[in-house]
Amino acid sequence: MPKLTNHEEVKQSIAEAAWKIILEQGLGGASVRAVAKEAGVSLGALRYYFSTQEELIAYSRELVYQRTAERMRRVFKLDMPPKEKIVQVLLNLLPSSEEKRLEVEARLVFKVYTRHKGDKFDAQKDSVYLAIKEVMSYLVLLNLLKKDSDLHLETERLYCLMDGLALDAMIRPELLEANRMKRIIIYHLNSACSEEFGTTGW
Amino acid sequence: MPKLTNHEEVKQSIAEAAWKIILEQGLGGASVRAVAKEAGVSLGALRYYFSTQEELIAYSRELVYQRTAERMRRVFKLDMPPKEKIVQVLLNLLPSSEEKRLEVEARLVFKVYTRHKGDKFDAQKDSVYLAIKEVMSYLVLLNLLKKDSDLHLETERLYCLMDGLALDAMIRPELLEANRMKRIIIYHLNSACSEEFGTTGW
Repeated sequence: MPKLTNHEEVKQSIAEAAWKIILEQGLGGASVRAVAKEAGVSLGALRYYFSTQEELIAYSRELVYQRTAERMRRVFKLDMPPKEKIVQVLLNLLPSSEEKRLEVEARLVFKVYTRHKGDKFDAQKDSVYLAIKEVMSYLVLLNLLKKDSDLHLETERLYCLMDGLALDAMIRPELLEANRMKRIIIYHLNSACSEEFGTTGW
Repeated sequence: MPKLTNHEEVKQSIAEAAWKIILEQGLGGASVRAVAKEAGVSLGALRYYFSTQEELIAYSRELVYQRTAERMRRVFKLDMPPKEKIVQVLLNLLPSSEEKRLEVEARLVFKVYTRHKGDKFDAQKDSVYLAIKEVMSYLVLLNLLKKDSDLHLETERLYCLMDGLALDAMIRPELLEANRMKRIIIYHLNSACSEEFGTTGW
């Protein structure tokens, strides 16, 4: 059904336009009018897909989670040594390429804005949290965590570290380029695990 | 000079009103008019202290850094065992009390917004980064870091972890109450140091 696919593509391009506006002006700036203009569609066309601004925002947030989850599945399926794969999964949660930057930053802004809207943030729906939990399960499966580790605290620690890294990469892109982020991730894994994940030297 | 002190107090209460509005509506909502209303002063009075919105925002951000730095100085001066003091310094960077919540959250929002405004974020001016650097220097002085530690990577890791914790505490206050934040901090210190900082059990 090519027509349906096309509908989905239009919705996604509208949501991506919403991400851009939210990053530049905050949620307050993401009126349906401004998003329609950014997406290059008429107000009528936008309203055909999203009848309210809330619907548009909810879909845009869902799309962030969906894209992140899809990327995680792709990376987990890659044929590479397990420890390298774990590093790759974590790097893929950060804006280590231009393509991912918009998506990672949009997720952070949606997360910050949860509070403004009085919404309750549900980490179980956050694809980054789910990816971190998968990484931890994989570390357990591979018997890589240090013997005295607390799985729950390690999970929370890594989740917070990754959020802080993403935030910092958004604010200080010149400092936290991919290589530097990779060093911090490998350093953290080396410190939490009983085997080395790689060198952290330059 | 009681009059001058009073001036400073009025400026600070206006800045605190700006924090509140920024947290609720984003920077876009913090017009001088809205801030004056929230602060309970006339528009003319606000303009007496801040001639532009930019001036008001810059002062509000500075006040966050200043308050954090002052609190850090107070905690560092406390008479308590060094390891306990380090835990207290880090806990004091998080919204572990209602009094600090507004300030910690305002800092995060200012940090996120740096990007929107095209400003360059200078970590060297961020009182949280400076506090983390002091904690690391103190750990070195006390010879507590593990022998193979990389001071620079440990500093960046702790800075990102603390930002992620603050963000999470803002979004999931019910999960990350003080006790839980303390457990993650102690767990992290135990893992990075050669001596135990305390128990992480319930």
